[in-house]
Amino acid sequence: MKKINNQTYLLSNTYIKETASIVGPKEKDGPLMEYFDNCLEDEFWGEKSWEKAESKIIKETINLLLQKAKLSPDQVDFCFAGDLLNQCIASSFAYRESNIPYIGLFGACSTFVESIIAGSSFIDSFAATNVICSASSHFCSAEKQFRFPLELGNQRPPSSQWTVTGCGSVILTNDKNSLPNNFPKIKVTSFTPGKIVDMGIKDANNMGAAMAGAAKDTLLTHLKDLDRKPSYYDGIFTGDLGYIGKDILTDLCLSEGYNIKNNYEDCGVLIFDKNSQDTHSGGSGCGCIATTFSGYIYNQLSNSNLRKILLIATGALTNSTSSQQGESIPGIAHAISIEIEN
Amino acid sequence: MKKINNQTYLLSNTYIKETASIVGPKEKDGPLMEYFDNCLEDEFWGEKSWEKAESKIIKETINLLLQKAKLSPDQVDFCFAGDLLNQCIASSFAYRESNIPYIGLFGACSTFVESIIAGSSFIDSFAATNVICSASSHFCSAEKQFRFPLELGNQRPPSSQWTVTGCGSVILTNDKNSLPNNFPKIKVTSFTPGKIVDMGIKDANNMGAAMAGAAKDTLLTHLKDLDRKPSYYDGIFTGDLGYIGKDILTDLCLSEGYNIKNNYEDCGVLIFDKNSQDTHSGGSGCGCIATTFSGYIYNQLSNSNLRKILLIATGALTNSTSSQQGESIPGIAHAISIEIEN
Repeated sequence: MKKINNQTYLLSNTYIKETASIVGPKEKDGPLMEYFDNCLEDEFWGEKSWEKAESKIIKETINLLLQKAKLSPDQVDFCFAGDLLNQCIASSFAYRESNIPYIGLFGACSTFVESIIAGSSFIDSFAATNVICSASSHFCSAEKQFRFPLELGNQRPPSSQWTVTGCGSVILTNDKNSLPNNFPKIKVTSFTPGKIVDMGIKDANNMGAAMAGAAKDTLLTHLKDLDRKPSYYDGIFTGDLGYIGKDILTDLCLSEGYNIKNNYEDCGVLIFDKNSQDTHSGGSGCGCIATTFSGYIYNQLSNSNLRKILLIATGALTNSTSSQQGESIPGIAHAISIEIEN
Repeated sequence: MKKINNQTYLLSNTYIKETASIVGPKEKDGPLMEYFDNCLEDEFWGEKSWEKAESKIIKETINLLLQKAKLSPDQVDFCFAGDLLNQCIASSFAYRESNIPYIGLFGACSTFVESIIAGSSFIDSFAATNVICSASSHFCSAEKQFRFPLELGNQRPPSSQWTVTGCGSVILTNDKNSLPNNFPKIKVTSFTPGKIVDMGIKDANNMGAAMAGAAKDTLLTHLKDLDRKPSYYDGIFTGDLGYIGKDILTDLCLSEGYNIKNNYEDCGVLIFDKNSQDTHSGGSGCGCIATTFSGYIYNQLSNSNLRKILLIATGALTNSTSSQQGESIPGIAHAISIEIEN
């Protein structure tokens, strides 16, 4: 691991060994359904509360991940995880019985890439051999906590986004020999951790606008640090800017001379169908990029439809108290590049 | 950085360059007053809310830390930070203008040591040169959020603890030449990240009991991994088990053949005066170990009154929703050893 210029780090030994994802019923009805490992029929999954359901989704995603990777928990050195619930209880209750050293993270919806950055620092230096990184969200527990009781049936403004119900997770490893021979070697080649950027947005129903500035800052820093053009990547994916934030980011980049129109997509745009699913500005939540990557994007890397991607998770560092106290909504974005090793 | 046995990692290149701490008025009245950099006269510090005051405490602690370390923000590669507020807003608003890449953590009251573990993985491998690690809490914002409005004046049971108002922070570096010549070289020599341990405690006013099992698990794992006896250390310090949790941990260790009575202390016991300050089972909160270490313990290392210490931060991974839904309170504990280099 080596720092290049302002805030980008090159990795040499960090591979994605396996991914797993479990999503809710609305994600099942969306265009990426076939890429997820498991789609639930309802938001409770047999639990008595949405919070417990979210924990179960994480727990079962990790069980599935270990099973797919043919690893036992004692072969995993660390897990790095987080979610959107107060005090990240979805993750801590999910990992309670895992028997794996646990590092809790909070990066709002940037948590998935944040967990890969934190995890890869241990993997790339060979301090650890296998680490799990995960992030999750749940539409119902998030709405209840951040906005209004679902039972009220409040009308949602056009700029609002729909929190993804689901958990996405990966295993990072430096044990190259443990990777299957007949499968592309999917390598995390660099990361650019983000600074907090505040665009002054105060509308909690316009998170895409609040986070677009941070996404621009991290994306352009990454490209400049590595002296790359956007076209270096087959795909640049942000986490959950949605339709509005995606347009803002595209414009912001263009205004600084970077054209990302041809190879840029947002996971919040990909995961739901705009016409039939009524999610307004698209998907959001920690689980949005986590499941879209672990399902769809990882599949595209696996069959070499994509060979070089940049994954930028975006988070809004706010809560209902800060909004009530008149604060704006600061954003953050963390980026990792993932490439097929030749 | 090298893993030893089950879950302990040896470090070779990680030094504490500087610390800073700012605390509130109750901590000023306590026995450690002289060791803190700044003690506030009231809980607001000129802000309109306790949440904003907590952010200001963090922000000013970091400013002071940089000033004491003679570093500018652009010489710092990362900051790792967290607190107890929902979505960790105290830290994110505090670091908003820092212009330093930000990794948010949530480990409840274990966050301070968690931040040093995460930070040292970048330092020890020479990927980064200087990182800031911090944690904070605020009595009023925590009571309001986790228990009752302060204005109610609710009676507190004898097992309850008093959340410390304050922020403690350190700069980790591998730039040994930047350390002052006439000052002991204070080195982070190992860490043991913790697993989540659930003792089945459901009383949110007895956090010490809820966390003691995790502290025992991490402490004994650390000692076994390194084949050390408790007497290897001049001092073993837990974060905020308080009087009750301290006794439980001492007994739990003794029942497994480890006597820690002679060199074990808890930061929650140290920071307030039991007789005059009416804090019942002692201090708690992310800020408890963060300020006690950054103030008192760092001072004792600096003048070589202590030469080898083990610092174990303990966290209760719970929130009010999980307690209302009948869940128990899982605990976690992360340990780092700090030694004076000869």
